[in-house]
Formats: sequence, C-alpha cells, structure tokens
Amino acid sequence: MTNRRRVVVALGGNAFVEEGQKLTMAGQFRFAREALATLAPLFEPDVALAIVHGNGPQVGSMLVRVEESLGKAYALPLEVCVAESEGELGYVLAQSLRNVLSDRGAQRPVASILTQVLVDENDPAFLRPTKPIGPFYDASQADELRARGFTIVEDSGRGYRRVVPSPAPHAIIEADIVGVLLEAGAIVIAAGGGGVPVIRRGERLQGVDAVIDKDLTAALLAEAIGAETLLILTAVSNVYLRYRRPDQEALRRLTPLRARELLAEGHFGEGSMAPKIDAAARFAERTGRRAAITCPAFAEAALAGEAGTLIQPG
Amino acid sequence: MTNRRRVVVALGGNAFVEEGQKLTMAGQFRFAREALATLAPLFEPDVALAIVHGNGPQVGSMLVRVEESLGKAYALPLEVCVAESEGELGYVLAQSLRNVLSDRGAQRPVASILTQVLVDENDPAFLRPTKPIGPFYDASQADELRARGFTIVEDSGRGYRRVVPSPAPHAIIEADIVGVLLEAGAIVIAAGGGGVPVIRRGERLQGVDAVIDKDLTAALLAEAIGAETLLILTAVSNVYLRYRRPDQEALRRLTPLRARELLAEGHFGEGSMAPKIDAAARFAERTGRRAAITCPAFAEAALAGEAGTLIQPG
Repeated sequence: MTNRRRVVVALGGNAFVEEGQKLTMAGQFRFAREALATLAPLFEPDVALAIVHGNGPQVGSMLVRVEESLGKAYALPLEVCVAESEGELGYVLAQSLRNVLSDRGAQRPVASILTQVLVDENDPAFLRPTKPIGPFYDASQADELRARGFTIVEDSGRGYRRVVPSPAPHAIIEADIVGVLLEAGAIVIAAGGGGVPVIRRGERLQGVDAVIDKDLTAALLAEAIGAETLLILTAVSNVYLRYRRPDQEALRRLTPLRARELLAEGHFGEGSMAPKIDAAARFAERTGRRAAITCPAFAEAALAGEAGTLIQPG
Repeated sequence: MTNRRRVVVALGGNAFVEEGQKLTMAGQFRFAREALATLAPLFEPDVALAIVHGNGPQVGSMLVRVEESLGKAYALPLEVCVAESEGELGYVLAQSLRNVLSDRGAQRPVASILTQVLVDENDPAFLRPTKPIGPFYDASQADELRARGFTIVEDSGRGYRRVVPSPAPHAIIEADIVGVLLEAGAIVIAAGGGGVPVIRRGERLQGVDAVIDKDLTAALLAEAIGAETLLILTAVSNVYLRYRRPDQEALRRLTPLRARELLAEGHFGEGSMAPKIDAAARFAERTGRRAAITCPAFAEAALAGEAGTLIQPG
C-alpha cells in the first residue's frame, strides 16, 4: 500500500448536459472536459482517484432508441443499458481525462472499468419502483406502456414517466480490480451509473432490470477501497436548508446523525439531494471518515475541509 | 514479471449469434457461456489471458436503434457505438466468465477495460471505406442514405449496405492497464470490437468515425503485452484452401511468408478469413512467436501446437 490518499469522486450524469439544452455527444465531450479541467488538482500524483459517474440522461436516450426500434433491433434490459452507458461515458471520461492530463504536461494511466454491483433480490425496491427514467409520456402513451407491464407514474404535472426499481448496492464485484489499478498509479473510472445491478443465484451472478443510485454506490466503493474522502459533486457549492427560498441556509458541517435527522424531517429533494446526503452519511457512519458535497469548482477546497458541506463524525 | 504464459484470444462477435437466429441479449449470454465453458482450460492460473471480442452484429443493431430514433435521441458516432459495445459485451463476457469460473470452483479476478486504439488519420482506409456494417437496405433506402453522406455498396445480390473506414491499429492506449491487470492475476477483456478508434491531435486524443478489425487489434495487443501466443477463434477448426469444395484442404502449419503468399493469391474471404490470417501473420512476423487460428473446442490443443492452423516462423 502506497501512501497516496485514496479519494472517490461521484460526478452526476446531468453534468454532461447544459440546462435546457439537448444532450449530444459533442456536448458530452465539452462538458466532460470542462468538469475535469476544474477537477485537475485531484489528478496530482499524491491522490489515488476513482471517479463514479451518473448516467440518467444517457440511459434515458438508450431507452428511447430501444423503444423506437422494437422489432428491428434486439431489446436491451435496463442493466445492459447501464453497461452500455459505462462504455459510452467511460470512453468520454477516459479520453477527456487523458487530454486534460496532457494539457497539463502530466502523464498517468487512466482506466475505465466495467463494474457490476451486487444487490439483494429481496430488496423491497423491486416491489416498489421509484426511480424515474427515460422520456415523458402523455396519458395515452402511459396507458399503453402500463399494458406492456411497465410501472408508470405521473411526474408533478410534467407528464408521465416510467419508474424502475432502485435497490441498494451491497458489494462492488470489481472492487479488487479498482484497488489494483489505483495501486498502479492509475486514475480509475468505475461503477458508472451506480454499476450494473446483479444478484447472486447460488454462486452465479445474474443481471436484474434495475438501476442503482450512483452516490450510494460511490459511498460503497469508497468504503471498499479504503478511501480517505468521498466527494459527491453536484450543481451547488453546498447543501442548503430551505433551498432557493429567501432564507436559504448553506450547511457547512454535519454529523451523520444530524444529516439523518434532517433527512427524516424531509428537508431535501427525494430524487436529487436526499440520496447524496444519505450516501455521504453512510460513508461517514461506516468509516468514521469525511464525505463532502459540493460543486466541481470547490472540489479541492472541500477535500481540504475548507468548502462544501462536510459530513463527518463529530 | 511472473512466469505465467501470456495469451491473447480473439473471439468473433458472431460467436454470440446462432446462425439464422436473431440476436438477443438472452442468446448472447447463452453463447458467451457456451464459448467460455469450452475455453475453460485457458483459465488455469498458469495462463495470463486477455480476450478481445468482436462486435459486428451488436454495433449493427446500435446503428438501427440510432437510425430509428433520429430526432428523438441523440445520434452516436461509430466510435461511440464501439465504446457502448465494449460496455455491453464487456459485461456479458465478464459476468459469464466469472460464472464459468465459479462453476469450476475457481476464483480469479475478471476485468473488462474500455480500450482506445490509435489509428493514423492519413490511413488510406478513410478515403476508401470497405467494412460493411449494419442492416441491409433496398435500392431506394440506399439512395437516401447516400444523399445523407453515407457510403453504400451493393453486397453480392443481398441488398445494399453501409461501408465504413477500417484503418489499421497503431497503438493500444490502455496496453499498460492490461499489463497491470494480467500481472495481478486477472483475466482481462480488452479492446472489444477492435477498440475505440482515436487519432492524435497534438497530444490530444480524438475519436474517429471508423471501426478497427478486431483480429488486427488482438495481434497488436498480443505484441504490446508480450504474449506467447495469439489465438484467433472462429467457426472452423482450421484455415482451408478451397474451403467448402470437395477438395478442401485444412492447413496445419504456415510460415508468415507462406501465409502472405496465399493471401496475395486471393485464397481467403476478404471479410472473413483473410484479416485473421493477416493478423496472425503480422504477430508471427513481428514477434517470432506463434499465432493459431481455430475454433473454441480446439483452443487448448492449438495453444499446445497440436491443432488448428499454426502460423509461425519456419
């Protein structure tokens, strides 16, 4: 074991789309490069860095492609979409990261690893799908999709959306691989989109039609590889109470216990900030180490404990 | 450097489809498992194994999905399709391989690596696309696609097909990563589909709309990691002269020079056996070591020099 600090960074899939703009490949490359250039201080040789990316918009587009080509091209179960998104974004990030390193005159190996993540087939999430995915539908499309067995919910007046199970991650199948590569000095892109969800059948692995929250998977990976810090990057510098109200309050430090209280009181958006705080609290609880939630511009400062919302035992 | 023998196996993308059957995900898992169970002797700890898979049928289906959803989901350049196929088949193979190992009571790490492969932007292949890809079209569809800038050719009376550039591979960007993982005892799935084709712009990498022949990339990877043997697996036990004629003749041993002569005489199918023989000859020429072309059932025997068509310096 070298003495480089291990750090896991979780980077949202929405970081690759400009708000209000359509997703494109050119746009993804542009945003990857901008986000990664901002993170450059984390690429110094004293940090052993693993990056976990999101994939919501990318998988949403894959599902549209699958739907539009039914009968003409084979269908992809959700976990295969996650695997393909690890290929797509793993490529975008590996290439962009390599180029950012070159621009700085630095040389480090960069590796994108296909990652499977074990979930429990008895996870209650399989009985109650909650994670919205893919495009918005109108009422008649919604009825048609329900007839085909999909779970469809109304999404706050914006239309109807498919929801899928989002079980909790239990183990990173390729954690040993990530460790080997970090030890060899590589920057590792792993567990993209929360990882490809698999269950155990006896000693065998088998994919399941689900998606895993990427922040929870990042927390689990950080624990598995003994990371010093889990850094969850999003669009805002801090977690806020009363977000976007005149009296909003940026949170600087939270114990995991306090974070759990605030979560239970319902202060945070279910599909957005709540899972990040849950993931951060989980890492801090299980390791006694620090998790931080902030935006890419404050990543370095948050790593030093000087910015963002820090969740760590009192 | 440990003294495990390094071996690179190239496995065709068509190995995942039953002849005359439609491609499905369930079928891909079934075929991956059957092919890998046959290859099990190569998973013994004394072999350091890297697997390069093809992706023709899978990328063909991706192109159909992209076409059918134009305007509804963002388009994917060809190299991004290759990256996605590395996710898809990297997942299928990593999981299936792990399960085959479990069935045998064996435990080894398995890693699928996103792999970029450098090509030359002045490769003449960019001026003369030759590699058929995707579905067959009728004459009016062909005209429409030509108008959109695609190169379309008639395919031996079966209809029209898009052809794309297939430049030669020059360097495996992630070769160092593959080496690290082999050294750590992992079985590595790398350079799927021939790798994601990239060119250098100054010090930066940039994807190009092309596909690379997976056998040529496998030969290059085998050279780069110092493999003892390159094993190119296909549907037949041997390379044949006068294939499928009454007087067909199985070839047992060829020098690279003899292989080149036979290639030049046009004995082998351009899109099928010829590139395999070219790749095998290249590996033998550049390393002085042995390449073998055979089917999965004879892989172990070919590795021992006792089956298949062996291409090695006299």
